[in-house]
Amino acid sequence: MSGTVVMKFGGTSVADAERIKRAAARIVAKREAGSRVVVVLSARGKETDRLIADALEISPVPEPREMDMLLSTGERVSCALAAMAISDMGHRAISLTGSQAGIVTDTSHTKARILDVRADRIMKALDDDNIVLVAGFQGVSTAKDVTTLGRGGSDTTAVALAAAINADVCEIYTDVAGVFNADPRIVPTARKLDTVSFDEMLEMSASGAGVLQLRSVEYARNHGVRIHCRSSFEDTPGTVILSEAETMEHPLITAVTHSTGEARVTLVGLPDTPGIAGRVTTALAEANVNVDMIIQNEPQTTDAKAEMSFTVPRDDMLAARAALAPIAEEFNIQLQADEAMGKVSIVGAGMKSHPGVAAKVFTTLGENGINIQMISTSPIRISCVVPGDKVPDAVRALHAAFELSGPDTIRPEQPFGEFA
Amino acid sequence: MSGTVVMKFGGTSVADAERIKRAAARIVAKREAGSRVVVVLSARGKETDRLIADALEISPVPEPREMDMLLSTGERVSCALAAMAISDMGHRAISLTGSQAGIVTDTSHTKARILDVRADRIMKALDDDNIVLVAGFQGVSTAKDVTTLGRGGSDTTAVALAAAINADVCEIYTDVAGVFNADPRIVPTARKLDTVSFDEMLEMSASGAGVLQLRSVEYARNHGVRIHCRSSFEDTPGTVILSEAETMEHPLITAVTHSTGEARVTLVGLPDTPGIAGRVTTALAEANVNVDMIIQNEPQTTDAKAEMSFTVPRDDMLAARAALAPIAEEFNIQLQADEAMGKVSIVGAGMKSHPGVAAKVFTTLGENGINIQMISTSPIRISCVVPGDKVPDAVRALHAAFELSGPDTIRPEQPFGEFA
Repeated sequence: MSGTVVMKFGGTSVADAERIKRAAARIVAKREAGSRVVVVLSARGKETDRLIADALEISPVPEPREMDMLLSTGERVSCALAAMAISDMGHRAISLTGSQAGIVTDTSHTKARILDVRADRIMKALDDDNIVLVAGFQGVSTAKDVTTLGRGGSDTTAVALAAAINADVCEIYTDVAGVFNADPRIVPTARKLDTVSFDEMLEMSASGAGVLQLRSVEYARNHGVRIHCRSSFEDTPGTVILSEAETMEHPLITAVTHSTGEARVTLVGLPDTPGIAGRVTTALAEANVNVDMIIQNEPQTTDAKAEMSFTVPRDDMLAARAALAPIAEEFNIQLQADEAMGKVSIVGAGMKSHPGVAAKVFTTLGENGINIQMISTSPIRISCVVPGDKVPDAVRALHAAFELSGPDTIRPEQPFGEFA
Repeated sequence: MSGTVVMKFGGTSVADAERIKRAAARIVAKREAGSRVVVVLSARGKETDRLIADALEISPVPEPREMDMLLSTGERVSCALAAMAISDMGHRAISLTGSQAGIVTDTSHTKARILDVRADRIMKALDDDNIVLVAGFQGVSTAKDVTTLGRGGSDTTAVALAAAINADVCEIYTDVAGVFNADPRIVPTARKLDTVSFDEMLEMSASGAGVLQLRSVEYARNHGVRIHCRSSFEDTPGTVILSEAETMEHPLITAVTHSTGEARVTLVGLPDTPGIAGRVTTALAEANVNVDMIIQNEPQTTDAKAEMSFTVPRDDMLAARAALAPIAEEFNIQLQADEAMGKVSIVGAGMKSHPGVAAKVFTTLGENGINIQMISTSPIRISCVVPGDKVPDAVRALHAAFELSGPDTIRPEQPFGEFA
């Protein structure tokens, strides 16, 4: 095929010289098949973790701006080395930093959002017959500082570039074969999905499917970028994320997802003051803490006090405590935390038209002696907070109950020639 | 004192978290003494060597542009970490890449020359009460690519910045106490110099004194930047490099320098064609090979062929062979190389007025059974190419012959308060 393709390789795919050469061979093959190729790379293997460790050796709470200057070096190293490998294979290659690639972000360091992609330099390099390697996960702020997009930001870089240069497809190369309808490590009969709709993928990423970063799927949906999530080690087709309209049909349930990194925070003795809940959520939002489920019980009597519980990623607990401390003190609120929580969710576009799904979920978990502590739903998702140690049982039970085991008999294979 | 100071720390001074904190403390002390401080840092310890090894694992001859993208990350890491350390000490600090610092170079990758320093961003940061950390050894080319200045380029970065922001002094912190009149590892009685003139320092750097990079001294002389070369581990004054006019007096001989990394190339069977020597030297210059001494013997008869010998840094031998291959083939010239050569030099501004010096050098070496193979001189330097294994003897012999042993009795101590 001709046209333009964005290929994104994760850290494990460029961990050492051997793998970089293998990725380079794959990139060159794509180029020789006639495509204009833009490649987005992550930092090598554990490089980012190493740099973070170096920073923490220096400072308990490193300056965010300097953290970005530090971390952004990892992807640049990957790109420079890959460009060398590609040049040795007889192809023109050029590496670009996020800034050189025209990725303009806001100024919120370590969690920057992309504001604009000025791809003229990339287009120029493609016109000059280059394979263009772009350092993922980073950009340049409106204040001309180096910024990073947060963990997994390289997926977002890839999708944003694909949108900006109007690529035919954004291929995300990863160490799994694609998107599965449950974690194969927990459910051996989990099935690889050939296609998933953006909405389903969004719910899956949001509820624990680690294969694609939530923001990248969001970005892809908003800009109509077709994502092909596939293995970087074998050449078999993976999973294509495409628009609702393009999907063949809507199965009742598409996948069971889970996460074990949840923590539940309960604020006890919340005064029945108007707007108190608002202050709590605002404080958490300002601290960039992603609150998932929120439950608030109404006080029964006028002098009684309300209680409020919510779940946050365990990694955000420190930030959450810090953000809530002043409010807790001001209103003499007790903060209780349970950090051993998990969450199991079922996702499926077909759910909309089947009210019985929720009941089946609760029954299934109940029959398996799994105590549901919180529930949240969307038109195509039902999530239950359960004790962390019960998560594997819950996933297996739901996967079986909704008959999600392979082989794929639910929908026809997609033709993948166009992505090969 | 107040005013502006540029402090440059080498790789050993920022090798690990402990040393970075120590350097940070030193920087903060300077700031608290009232100076506006700009810091230039090198890559940590062996980081650059590690990156080069990574590149060579990928490609035998890495793309120069990509090499620069790769290597430039080392200094950025140092600066980010140092900025974190300084922030933790309660001072505002900001790290800048060479590009952000406004260091504009030509496009000759891995050996770029500084064309311009646009220091507005540095000045702005200083006005905002920041300690400014600049990644050494790098800049941005007129083609907007990341470039590096070649080994030791961080010294040049420091001096160039000192000139651009009109700093009072450029302090080069190193792991030796200053500039010695011979290598203390070879001559235990070698004496630390309090002051050296630019011209002397130029000759010393050019002839093997590793303490300061030649280009940085050149740049400092051309822009009148005062360099203070001192120890990063103790707070004692080091050596000040200043203009001829400022130096107290001109001793006959200031120092004995040497290098053991010389190689001699001899071209045998050079046709007596006009301009052949020109073509040879041009080819070497275009390959960025630094030719030192050149000797060409005239053919005795018309049909005879000339011979030409020259010395190059051993590291440039590969480049030299490559550059000369086509000419050698075209004229059927034999290329002989002796890579085990060394060079010993004496440097001194006072030499000009003492014609007897050269004779004394030759006699001294002769009496010590050291065979001189090539000679080159400047008004203030005499250099002799000798067998590599004879270099230590030669240095000791000359150091003794010219009575250069400490303690300093030749010139009065300089007042150093202004640099403290």
